[in-house]
Amino acid sequence: MKQLTIIKIGGNVIDNSEKLHQFLLDFTALPGDKILVHGGGKIASELGVSLGIEPKMVDGRRITDIETLRVVTMVYAGLINKNMVAQLQAKGCNAIGLSGADGNVIKAVKRPVGKVDYGFVGDLDEASVSVATLDSLLKSNLIPVLCAITHDGDTQLLNTNADTIASAVAVAMSSSYETRLVYCFEKKGVLRDVEDELSLVPEIRRSEFESLQDQGIVSGGMIPKLHNAFEAIRQGVKAVYIGKADELAQIDTQGFGTRLTA
Amino acid sequence: MKQLTIIKIGGNVIDNSEKLHQFLLDFTALPGDKILVHGGGKIASELGVSLGIEPKMVDGRRITDIETLRVVTMVYAGLINKNMVAQLQAKGCNAIGLSGADGNVIKAVKRPVGKVDYGFVGDLDEASVSVATLDSLLKSNLIPVLCAITHDGDTQLLNTNADTIASAVAVAMSSSYETRLVYCFEKKGVLRDVEDELSLVPEIRRSEFESLQDQGIVSGGMIPKLHNAFEAIRQGVKAVYIGKADELAQIDTQGFGTRLTA
Repeated sequence: MKQLTIIKIGGNVIDNSEKLHQFLLDFTALPGDKILVHGGGKIASELGVSLGIEPKMVDGRRITDIETLRVVTMVYAGLINKNMVAQLQAKGCNAIGLSGADGNVIKAVKRPVGKVDYGFVGDLDEASVSVATLDSLLKSNLIPVLCAITHDGDTQLLNTNADTIASAVAVAMSSSYETRLVYCFEKKGVLRDVEDELSLVPEIRRSEFESLQDQGIVSGGMIPKLHNAFEAIRQGVKAVYIGKADELAQIDTQGFGTRLTA
Repeated sequence: MKQLTIIKIGGNVIDNSEKLHQFLLDFTALPGDKILVHGGGKIASELGVSLGIEPKMVDGRRITDIETLRVVTMVYAGLINKNMVAQLQAKGCNAIGLSGADGNVIKAVKRPVGKVDYGFVGDLDEASVSVATLDSLLKSNLIPVLCAITHDGDTQLLNTNADTIASAVAVAMSSSYETRLVYCFEKKGVLRDVEDELSLVPEIRRSEFESLQDQGIVSGGMIPKLHNAFEAIRQGVKAVYIGKADELAQIDTQGFGTRLTA
């Protein structure tokens, strides 16, 4: 099977134009088929503020009301996605920017109203990703660049977590490719000592995950991150990497961040 | 050769949700390969005003400064394009929304600064349209939906006239398809009497264009429109139609607006 790398970047890369430039160079240089998934960054919140849209929070969680959906559609699918694609094109990468509506690439379900009404937020299931469309784009030598906007197939756009999109794409594409999923975040990876970047744990197998939790090496926000990563591996993804965007270039040589495997 | 229809819609359709819904139904029903090109509409100006960006005009012509470029990128490539694609998907049309940067579909040249500096405006030439990319999307049964944002291949997004994009796409695709180009605007077509919709001129050949100008039947803003249309025909487009969006459904039966031919 051909190898496919799915890379997710978030605000810490997007908001820093130098970091973003270097990352896009490294992404372009990465051999083989690849897909980029990007989140939002500060620009959406700033635009919301300029337009007088107050961020709505319930129990500390952000709500996507109709006004906020308009803003994130403009910023994620328009401003960020198109500028990123134009930069990739200039670097020789034949990128094509997509929301989930484009080619029906990611179809989501509006999150049901429970204790909290999250508004226009989309959740994914096994049938969400159109493998056929992504596959035909890759076969046409186009590099998909996905933003965190999906649709419900019934005219409604939805705001969807970019980590979740990256993971769902990696799982779905595992039927046709040997996939690896790369999460770029602000740390070098899983660290034995959060203060010490030299304490990187280079590899974690699923069987070791529990013991690392017991030892407190994996804690806090890392627990759900790693849990989701191992879940993707259980569903067919070959490896999940968690590390720093600026080290992407060495993924096939010295390795990149923490590598999670079955 | 396979037939390909390129349709351009503008603000008078985009700004009216009922008209847009009906147009997108008719577009979906249109048989054969097709490409949609859309302009802006009032939303971009309204967003600009909300953000306190004053429209900049020089000699009655709009200038795209960097702030305006951000706004049109958000509105055309984000808000309008993605909502249109989501609506087409809901109607069973496998639309894929694109700016010119995506797949390098439309590469433009920033308009040189002459008497007026138009700012971030892109002009097109013969090499602007990537026939290969559009062709491979069509062959994957994807329907391209192009917004009026292009790029220069060197990271810069540019604002480009949607009529010009539609015409350049039709001309370039004529090498591989029998193309027809459809401009939807507010009138039924070329009218012998502007006040009387029953006075429609159903067909104009190039040889008749001059005499219609002499008679004053074609005048004002219609002259450059028709001039550009005949220029597209000279460069290989089979026919250009100018008519009302809400009559698109009858293009292959009773005809649509004014049909221009060689």
